[in-house]
Amino acid sequence: MEMNTLNNNNNNQSDSSSPPQRKRVMNPVDPEEFRKQGHMIIDFLADYYTKVSNFPVRSQVEPDYLRKHLPDSAPLVPEPIESILEDVQEHIIPGITHWMSPNYYAYFPSSGSVAGFMGEMLSSGLNVVGFNWISSPAATELETIVMDWLGEVLKLPQQFLYKSSNNNGGGVLLGTTCEAVLCTLVAARDKKLSQIGRNNIGKLVVYGSDQTHSSFGKAAQIAGIQNVRAIKTKRSNSFALKADSLLSTIHSDVKNGLIPIYLCATVGTTATTSIDPLMELCDVAKEYEIWVHVDAAYAGSACICPEFRSCIDGIEGANSFSFNAHKWFLTNLACCCLWVKDHNALTKSLSTNPEFLRNKASESKQVIDYKDWQITLSRKFNALKLWLVLRSYGVENLRNFLRSHVNMAMTFEGLVKLDKRFAIGATLTEEHHVIMAWKLIQEHADSLLGSS
Amino acid sequence: MEMNTLNNNNNNQSDSSSPPQRKRVMNPVDPEEFRKQGHMIIDFLADYYTKVSNFPVRSQVEPDYLRKHLPDSAPLVPEPIESILEDVQEHIIPGITHWMSPNYYAYFPSSGSVAGFMGEMLSSGLNVVGFNWISSPAATELETIVMDWLGEVLKLPQQFLYKSSNNNGGGVLLGTTCEAVLCTLVAARDKKLSQIGRNNIGKLVVYGSDQTHSSFGKAAQIAGIQNVRAIKTKRSNSFALKADSLLSTIHSDVKNGLIPIYLCATVGTTATTSIDPLMELCDVAKEYEIWVHVDAAYAGSACICPEFRSCIDGIEGANSFSFNAHKWFLTNLACCCLWVKDHNALTKSLSTNPEFLRNKASESKQVIDYKDWQITLSRKFNALKLWLVLRSYGVENLRNFLRSHVNMAMTFEGLVKLDKRFAIGATLTEEHHVIMAWKLIQEHADSLLGSS
Repeated sequence: MEMNTLNNNNNNQSDSSSPPQRKRVMNPVDPEEFRKQGHMIIDFLADYYTKVSNFPVRSQVEPDYLRKHLPDSAPLVPEPIESILEDVQEHIIPGITHWMSPNYYAYFPSSGSVAGFMGEMLSSGLNVVGFNWISSPAATELETIVMDWLGEVLKLPQQFLYKSSNNNGGGVLLGTTCEAVLCTLVAARDKKLSQIGRNNIGKLVVYGSDQTHSSFGKAAQIAGIQNVRAIKTKRSNSFALKADSLLSTIHSDVKNGLIPIYLCATVGTTATTSIDPLMELCDVAKEYEIWVHVDAAYAGSACICPEFRSCIDGIEGANSFSFNAHKWFLTNLACCCLWVKDHNALTKSLSTNPEFLRNKASESKQVIDYKDWQITLSRKFNALKLWLVLRSYGVENLRNFLRSHVNMAMTFEGLVKLDKRFAIGATLTEEHHVIMAWKLIQEHADSLLGSS
Repeated sequence: MEMNTLNNNNNNQSDSSSPPQRKRVMNPVDPEEFRKQGHMIIDFLADYYTKVSNFPVRSQVEPDYLRKHLPDSAPLVPEPIESILEDVQEHIIPGITHWMSPNYYAYFPSSGSVAGFMGEMLSSGLNVVGFNWISSPAATELETIVMDWLGEVLKLPQQFLYKSSNNNGGGVLLGTTCEAVLCTLVAARDKKLSQIGRNNIGKLVVYGSDQTHSSFGKAAQIAGIQNVRAIKTKRSNSFALKADSLLSTIHSDVKNGLIPIYLCATVGTTATTSIDPLMELCDVAKEYEIWVHVDAAYAGSACICPEFRSCIDGIEGANSFSFNAHKWFLTNLACCCLWVKDHNALTKSLSTNPEFLRNKASESKQVIDYKDWQITLSRKFNALKLWLVLRSYGVENLRNFLRSHVNMAMTFEGLVKLDKRFAIGATLTEEHHVIMAWKLIQEHADSLLGSS
């Protein structure tokens, strides 16, 4: 690659209307430039973490604040990294809401960590595209192994783990829960349509509760499914979806000629932290051959602690399970862990086999091509991040980290109970007590305690 | 956050069956630990780039090579970064196919760069979740601005730029083309179904050619659209989709009671680098109110050079346009740039409005909430990467970088022509001549020249 030698200095003299013939151009991956700038950015971010708790958590800017600070057009000539970092400091930092601040309590907590960041860096630096095994065997194999590790720590049934399910089940890393729900929903849809004919898509019906995350309705919308049931829950039942409510809704739908295909059960709902009773729901679902997906977006992390594992009791009856490691598991955005019992159901809907991707390894069926387990073709080396988190902290430290949050939440709940202006919103079982309390502290501590 | 002080040493003594009460746990974002490890990873990657050209480009491992090198379970106790990096060196590097090698010519080229990596680092380090404006105004506003910059450099019609379209059009950063196609397809589908009723989904039909990327068929599958036309192309027409072939296919479909909704036209197909004639195709589409998406996944980058801009002549008739900056624009994976003329068509299909995301800024309609332009809810601060690429290299350097590849491709094409064992596959126009030649060198130079 002799032509790609570094020569930034005379590139700006060229005229766009007269392309040069064999001009020497810059080397975009010059190792020494990489080293220099990399160290600068690391120091920039380390300094940011040192002072982040001093910033107002929520950005104070007004809509359209940024345009007046930036030029109208992209620069024609290169600008030094020093000027760019100055602009980040002056114009970008004031415009961000500081998810990495220890005073941040909105939505879900910032779950970035040293290990999560280092894993992301390695993945971005190696910059492999792991759509199939051959395009980077390590990217595929590490993902399968790490998902088996994590599945074991969560005490998922053997059918969800690749190795111990005789390669029928297994885990995959996606970006977000929305993707996990969409992929499994499409798999469930197509499984049913292959039996009853594709023209019956209008008859399909899917189930959640009025507490289910909005991404469920969106996934159904994207998948072309028009019948979405948001079954009513009650405060007296801690806003959990009751099996008999599900059953009566199904009965009514079936009587009307509709065909049930999918239930999205939630462990730790966003608004009320309710936990749907998996065992009873799966029993109902089984009778109607309904695919059960369990969305434990934030609460799933806590299940690595033996004392909280009961939150997902009944998971053995489900078809798929997902949680977001970027929510409460020290993994930088984005990292959604999805396990399925039958990955053929996914690949039947999502696989493609264009001529330019054919290779002996795929044809041998001895390898996984994760492109067929997800929406997109291209994918990063996702597993490095989760691997570094598990190794850098170790499972016991991760458990203690989660426990420390639960302890803080219990303390906070005690404070809330002392204040007559507040009430705990739902009768709590021991398990979601801690999760609800955790959510309380995450969502309200900021305004209650005036910590920012 | 007093409880989060660093105390890695005694955490491993705990027993998982007896949760500690108010134990001090590790600080997952300790700035000095971040600084130390960050510098180590930067050096690790810089060293990797120094020697990457010495490795065999394609990994030489056999399926299931990795399990025997790794433990069966996740570690209970923390491991130092030094041990982890040793394992990366010994067990991961031999298992990757080196997309960053200068000798890599498969699929599309490694498009990582110093600037792309630094942008990704900043985004991962700030770790903001930019689903709506309020969650980090800078993440939204920089994206809108940078996409206006890049749209202007590409000379996209004003209707595709946010500012100059009176805020009707605009750009968004997604992960891959698959997402761009799925989002626009769903928008087109729902626009039609809102007129004719959702029960008519089985009548909808979408169009591409037999050269269109496989992600088009997959997106249609996900969106529940069963009628997908892969219109035949011919070598004599350089494998481009002819407008009269499109028209006769539409005629036949309409006669059979089907309803045309979407055309995926391609500028630079994967297998044969053909360029569909946008102007003629858009004329046909307009007559039938068909949404035209233009997929210029790799070739779009070249259109920043005035001499290659004619590849997308006719784009003014399209509804949406996308290209992948991670393919040929020095941006690390993943970065798909999508522009639309009417972002309301996207948000009508993809918006959600759960109680926990409501806020004054969104309700004022003065801001963009990009969650409603994409499949997922969560999203990273995507624009930093592209902003750093544009600023660090400058538009003129980027043009020269692309031109240097085209020049190499022309040289290579000359060599191919001299060798009687090879023929150029299609009659070439001047514009896709260079793109086809570029693809040739990318895909075949390795085996032809024996460079690895």
